[in-house]
Amino acid sequence: MPAFSSQPSAPIAVFDSGLGGLTVVRALMRRLPREKLIYFGDTARVPYGSKSPRTVLQFARQCLHFLTQFNPKLIVVACNTVSATALESLHHDFAIPVIGVLEPGAAAAVAAAARTPAGQPRRIGLIATEATIASQAYNQAVTRLDATIQVIGRACPLLVPMIEEGRLPDSPIVRSVLQEYLQPFKSLQIPVLILGCTHYPIFSQAIEETLGLPTALIDSADQTALVVAEKLATMHIANDAGTPLADGLTCYVTDQGQRFESLAGRFLGRLITQPVWVEPERLENPTVEK
Amino acid sequence: MPAFSSQPSAPIAVFDSGLGGLTVVRALMRRLPREKLIYFGDTARVPYGSKSPRTVLQFARQCLHFLTQFNPKLIVVACNTVSATALESLHHDFAIPVIGVLEPGAAAAVAAAARTPAGQPRRIGLIATEATIASQAYNQAVTRLDATIQVIGRACPLLVPMIEEGRLPDSPIVRSVLQEYLQPFKSLQIPVLILGCTHYPIFSQAIEETLGLPTALIDSADQTALVVAEKLATMHIANDAGTPLADGLTCYVTDQGQRFESLAGRFLGRLITQPVWVEPERLENPTVEK
Repeated sequence: MPAFSSQPSAPIAVFDSGLGGLTVVRALMRRLPREKLIYFGDTARVPYGSKSPRTVLQFARQCLHFLTQFNPKLIVVACNTVSATALESLHHDFAIPVIGVLEPGAAAAVAAAARTPAGQPRRIGLIATEATIASQAYNQAVTRLDATIQVIGRACPLLVPMIEEGRLPDSPIVRSVLQEYLQPFKSLQIPVLILGCTHYPIFSQAIEETLGLPTALIDSADQTALVVAEKLATMHIANDAGTPLADGLTCYVTDQGQRFESLAGRFLGRLITQPVWVEPERLENPTVEK
Repeated sequence: MPAFSSQPSAPIAVFDSGLGGLTVVRALMRRLPREKLIYFGDTARVPYGSKSPRTVLQFARQCLHFLTQFNPKLIVVACNTVSATALESLHHDFAIPVIGVLEPGAAAAVAAAARTPAGQPRRIGLIATEATIASQAYNQAVTRLDATIQVIGRACPLLVPMIEEGRLPDSPIVRSVLQEYLQPFKSLQIPVLILGCTHYPIFSQAIEETLGLPTALIDSADQTALVVAEKLATMHIANDAGTPLADGLTCYVTDQGQRFESLAGRFLGRLITQPVWVEPERLENPTVEK
C-alpha cells in the first residue's frame, strides 16, 4: 500500500525552512486554484542556508515526516537549500512524490539561455544561500541539460535577513548590498540570472534595476508550479473539478512568532489566516517509508 | 544531593545560541586562566534573536540539560537573547548556578551613566536582537538599579549576519548600516551604549567611529567574567591553585559547519581546536532538576 494518497481530493504539501516558500504557494494557487494546500515552515530553526548539508537533511526529513500525516498526494520542497543539498535522500526516504524547486529553475534558466544571441558566451548567473552555492547543485542540474553552459554562482547571505527585517527594495542599503553582490554579473553582462532562494523575488525589481541589463531573471516559483501541474496530470490525480477554492491553504509553523502575518503577507501577496503552531521538539525522525 | 559539582576542579559551562558567546569565553580565560571551560553553541538552530520567547526557552532548556552531563560548577548563559527572555525560568529549572550576561551588562552601563556630567539627561542606549529589545529586559534591569535612567533600545538584525558573513568593520556597507541603526543615539548624544549581543564587540571600533561621540560602549563579556569570578569566590569553588591552563577549552556545537574555525577564531581572538559535534536531535528536554 502506498504511503501517500492517490486521491485527487488529497492536498499538496509544501515545505520550506521558513516563509519564503509562500512565493511557491502563490504560484501554485494561481495555476492550480482547486488544490488544497498544506504549508509547513520550520520557522524555529530557520535559516537553513548557512548550515551544513547533514543538518539540513535531518531537519528536512523531520518536516516531511510531519507532512505525511495529512496524506498528501505530492510534496513540494519550496526551499532551494533543501532542494540543492537533500532532495536525492528525500526521494529515497519517502514514498510520496517529492518535487524540488531547483530542477524547474535550472530548466527555465537553460531555456532562457538558449535565447541568448549567437556568439555570446553561454553563461547563467546564480544568487543563492551559502549552502546552495557550496552544493554546486545548480551547476550540475544545468550541465545535465546543456554541458556548454557555465554557471557562475554567488552567495548572498544578507538578502534574506534584509527581507525578513522588512527592509524595502528601494532602501539605499539594499541598493548598496545588491551593487556589491551583483557586480560580477554586471561585469560579465550575464544574460540570465537565477534567483536561487524563494525570498529573492521580493527584490526582483531592485535586482533588475541594479543590473541595468536585459537580464532574464529566473524565479523558480512559476516553473515549479508548472512542473507540479504536469506531474499531477501524468499521475491522473489533479483536482480539476469544481469551483476554485477561496481559501484552500492551511499553514503550520514551528515558531510562534509575531512576524508571521506581515512577512507571510509579503510573500503570498495577500492576507493570510494565522498558522497552526507545531512544537519543534515534537518533530520526529521518520522510519524510512520506502 | 545537588545536581551540580561543588568541586573547584569542576568545569564552568558556557552556552550560546551560536559562536558569539566565545567573546565571553575570551574574557573568562583572561580573568580565570585556571578554570576548565566547556562551550556549547547551538549552531544548528542559530539565530535565536528573531524567534519567540517560548522557542528560545525550549531550546535553551535542552542545551543547559546537555551541559549538566559535565557536572559543571556554574553555567554562564553567554547569549543576550536567552538572558533577556528565559533566565528566570532557567534559574527555576536547574539546580546549578546560572549567570546571564544581561545583569552584568546593565550594572556596568548604570555605573558608566553615573559618570555622566550633572545636568545631562540620564539615558542609556541599547543595540540588540529583535527578541532582546522586545523583552524589555534591559530596561527592567536598569530600572531596578536606577529608576531615573531611561533605556532607549534599537533592534539591529543585520549586524549578526554581517559579522557571520565575515564582513570587515570598514566595509562601506557595514558603515551605512551602522549609520542608520545608530542615528537615534547620535541625535540624542547618548553617553552610554550597551552592545546587547555577544557578536557586536567585533564591530566596537566601527560603532565608536560612527557615533563620533565620547560614548562609553558596554561590552558585557568582561563584566560577566567579573561576576563569575565573584560568584566562585563567594561559593569557595574557584580553581585558583596551579598553573594557568594552556588549553582548558572544549567546544561542542550542533552543526558540523565549515565556518567554525574562521568565525570562532574571530570571536576568541586565537586559533581554536575543532569542536565536538552533537546531533541536535539528541538534545532532550530536561526533567526539572530542582
